[in-house]
Amino acid sequence: MPAHPQLNRNGELRHLLSTEGLPRDVLLHIMDTAQGFMSFGEREVKKVPLLRGKSVFNLFFENSTRTRTTFEIAAQRLSADVFNLDIQRSSTSKGESLLDTIANLEAMDADIFVVRHGQSGAPFLIASHVPRHVHVVNAGDGRHAHPTQGLLDMMTIRHYKRDFSALTVAIVGDIVHSRVARSDIHALTTLGVPEVRAVGPKTLVPADLQQLGVRVCHDIEQGLRDADVVIALRLQNERMAGGLLPSASEFHMMYGLTPDRLRLARRDAIVMHPGPINRGVELDSSVADGPQSVILPQVRFGIAVRMAVLSIVANTGA
Amino acid sequence: MPAHPQLNRNGELRHLLSTEGLPRDVLLHIMDTAQGFMSFGEREVKKVPLLRGKSVFNLFFENSTRTRTTFEIAAQRLSADVFNLDIQRSSTSKGESLLDTIANLEAMDADIFVVRHGQSGAPFLIASHVPRHVHVVNAGDGRHAHPTQGLLDMMTIRHYKRDFSALTVAIVGDIVHSRVARSDIHALTTLGVPEVRAVGPKTLVPADLQQLGVRVCHDIEQGLRDADVVIALRLQNERMAGGLLPSASEFHMMYGLTPDRLRLARRDAIVMHPGPINRGVELDSSVADGPQSVILPQVRFGIAVRMAVLSIVANTGA
Amino acid sequence: MPAHPQLNRNGELRHLLSTEGLPRDVLLHIMDTAQGFMSFGEREVKKVPLLRGKSVFNLFFENSTRTRTTFEIAAQRLSADVFNLDIQRSSTSKGESLLDTIANLEAMDADIFVVRHGQSGAPFLIASHVPRHVHVVNAGDGRHAHPTQGLLDMMTIRHYKRDFSALTVAIVGDIVHSRVARSDIHALTTLGVPEVRAVGPKTLVPADLQQLGVRVCHDIEQGLRDADVVIALRLQNERMAGGLLPSASEFHMMYGLTPDRLRLARRDAIVMHPGPINRGVELDSSVADGPQSVILPQVRFGIAVRMAVLSIVANTGA
Repeated sequence: MPAHPQLNRNGELRHLLSTEGLPRDVLLHIMDTAQGFMSFGEREVKKVPLLRGKSVFNLFFENSTRTRTTFEIAAQRLSADVFNLDIQRSSTSKGESLLDTIANLEAMDADIFVVRHGQSGAPFLIASHVPRHVHVVNAGDGRHAHPTQGLLDMMTIRHYKRDFSALTVAIVGDIVHSRVARSDIHALTTLGVPEVRAVGPKTLVPADLQQLGVRVCHDIEQGLRDADVVIALRLQNERMAGGLLPSASEFHMMYGLTPDRLRLARRDAIVMHPGPINRGVELDSSVADGPQSVILPQVRFGIAVRMAVLSIVANTGA
Repeated sequence: MPAHPQLNRNGELRHLLSTEGLPRDVLLHIMDTAQGFMSFGEREVKKVPLLRGKSVFNLFFENSTRTRTTFEIAAQRLSADVFNLDIQRSSTSKGESLLDTIANLEAMDADIFVVRHGQSGAPFLIASHVPRHVHVVNAGDGRHAHPTQGLLDMMTIRHYKRDFSALTVAIVGDIVHSRVARSDIHALTTLGVPEVRAVGPKTLVPADLQQLGVRVCHDIEQGLRDADVVIALRLQNERMAGGLLPSASEFHMMYGLTPDRLRLARRDAIVMHPGPINRGVELDSSVADGPQSVILPQVRFGIAVRMAVLSIVANTGA
Repeated sequence: MPAHPQLNRNGELRHLLSTEGLPRDVLLHIMDTAQGFMSFGEREVKKVPLLRGKSVFNLFFENSTRTRTTFEIAAQRLSADVFNLDIQRSSTSKGESLLDTIANLEAMDADIFVVRHGQSGAPFLIASHVPRHVHVVNAGDGRHAHPTQGLLDMMTIRHYKRDFSALTVAIVGDIVHSRVARSDIHALTTLGVPEVRAVGPKTLVPADLQQLGVRVCHDIEQGLRDADVVIALRLQNERMAGGLLPSASEFHMMYGLTPDRLRLARRDAIVMHPGPINRGVELDSSVADGPQSVILPQVRFGIAVRMAVLSIVANTGA
């Protein structure tokens, strides 16, 4: 592994693997580039030739139609050729190793791999084996990182709050299993947010999360009080089956975002969620559709951030 | 719901949801536009930039590789970016509501949704919730409507018969469960066809179908006599399992299009079928492949009609 | 069937169905054309407009994400519109016949069908029914032929060995069930390779394979001695279930390519494999990753060969 797995010698972004370890100026450069793509959707022709003739491979070892589609849209709007590999049906299911699959696709002149994988670290492993002209973007690996989600969350916060340096951000829900939470926490810390709270039950927000630099709150009212930003995480059904949670309705009773609870936050607080939302579980419909919700703008920032990341890494030399 | 769910204030086509309620001049405008695309397949380069930089989303909640492919071809030939969503695997299977899925895709700057759904009315629901610049095309909803099939059938009939005003059209088979039959009947009536016959057994062609403006015939010979156009419908296997039909071979014996029966129609009658055909059930192979069959030209008209519909709605203002 | 199912009257390639029966000059023309595409991957913009506005349909009746992707890449780099049909879900599963499916796709103005099918001969059947302006490329049919694999293997051998006329080529493994072996053997023979050996156990390399013009060797050491080229075939797990092979580890003990065995071949011998490889079965990892292995260059030649074949057939008149 090189000194920094994501940056080249000049400190430029070669791969996007995690928000952890990314310097503040790199985060800001991605966000500023994405900002330039934000008016893009209103254009008559939503296409620029920045990646024309480049080959982007979507390698989704874990299903995610939504995230895959956002990368496909971003790549197509940059005029790249996009190839979606149906991994469940492919050679990996014939016993081929991950690195053999990657080596084969490289031989087909891939330029960028967008990788989602159930195993934490898989995109790092790939990045450490590709040649210099090939780039890797992590689209979510295990419980580890989901850096484009982290970045789009930062874009959203900056858009509505301008300045990170005086914010209180409350992340509510299953923090311990959430790659979104982890990517948000690293980015928020790097961008100088003074108070990040991890809010949820002890099974999902253990005390040792403090080592990530967050304040652990098991009480929802304490967690939300005077927050500027509230990020609700998606509750994974698997957790309930695993006994870490009694039921969706009990979670909602204890930690669900209701209008009453939201009133504890600042009046101009924004409500975020990585989607897809479970109405009546993580938040009430009146909150999801209410004036403080910025959940749909998050989606719009997501396309712009992915366009920014793809166009930046594609132009970073070794 | 607005006064007319498919048209804007100037009477132009914003969404294509059903042939029902579409004025004659709108039907003719689509058909005339499609006619302009009919020579397209013979060109060296089968592409025009009419939808360049537009994003078309194929949302097929019900599987149909064939219909999805025709829309994909039509959109690509108009130079659109096409995204096929694998709905079975997507967020809707994670409990997200239909309207939340649509709102998310809108935030990704969708221009057109092509929707197939098992529930009648789903494309109307979507059309009533999208913003002004987004357009919905119904690719088949429940038993309700399949308007592009209806329109391509009208194109086919006009091509071979020129004038609608003196025709007898016999639709044979499972009328009551057929969205194709319904879309055909509404279009034929609007275009001034004086006699439309619904031909089949009482379980599939109940007497109250008369309220659609058709003549109900339970006798195949009476139904075919002197017809100018014979439209055979696909027999769905599900109907037989449901007890509405004894067996495929019995259906063929009673209502299958044989050369003998076809002789009852006019000598220049054309035979149509929405495909895929069941040889030896709805029609004999000698009829399907015979000189009166226009089943493959229907497919060709289908691409042109879908190009016409996509290019028309994309350019209709609110 | 015409006199020659693959060539037009001028001896030019209309369809690529098999390497069997292809004249030497046609093989060389494909390889020379492919050579011109070999530097393509290094270009800034990996795209030429040779097939712009043409419609290529990938019809994979048998799953093969890898081969389908190589054709998709080749077609996209030629600027074609590519449509992947999900055959498992399509009309053929509704009982439509293969030729009806093809006729329907032709009516959608298909230019090229890339066909993989479990039944030997299916691409020939299709080629004998398409109109003059439509072309068929066999992407693997049953145990019969896999001509683009055969051609990329010839490209690879020519690249490393220059001259075919003094070579000894050893093909090791399950020859009798391998369409790759069959396509290689026909091409090698036509290109004038004096000695082609079929190496493996009697169950997989029966004596009557001699009629293909190969020398049958049941002894691996005898098979490899002084070979210039060693082609290891993929061992299909199905064969072991069928009782033709005791186990993967027993195969490896008897016929696996180890460094020791490879020393029997010429010092500059190359090692090839169609992929995906089973490490420790057909070959040791040290051989697969060693200096004599040209397995990844084969993949690169594969894209160039498929670009060559698609662009040649598309421009061949009837």
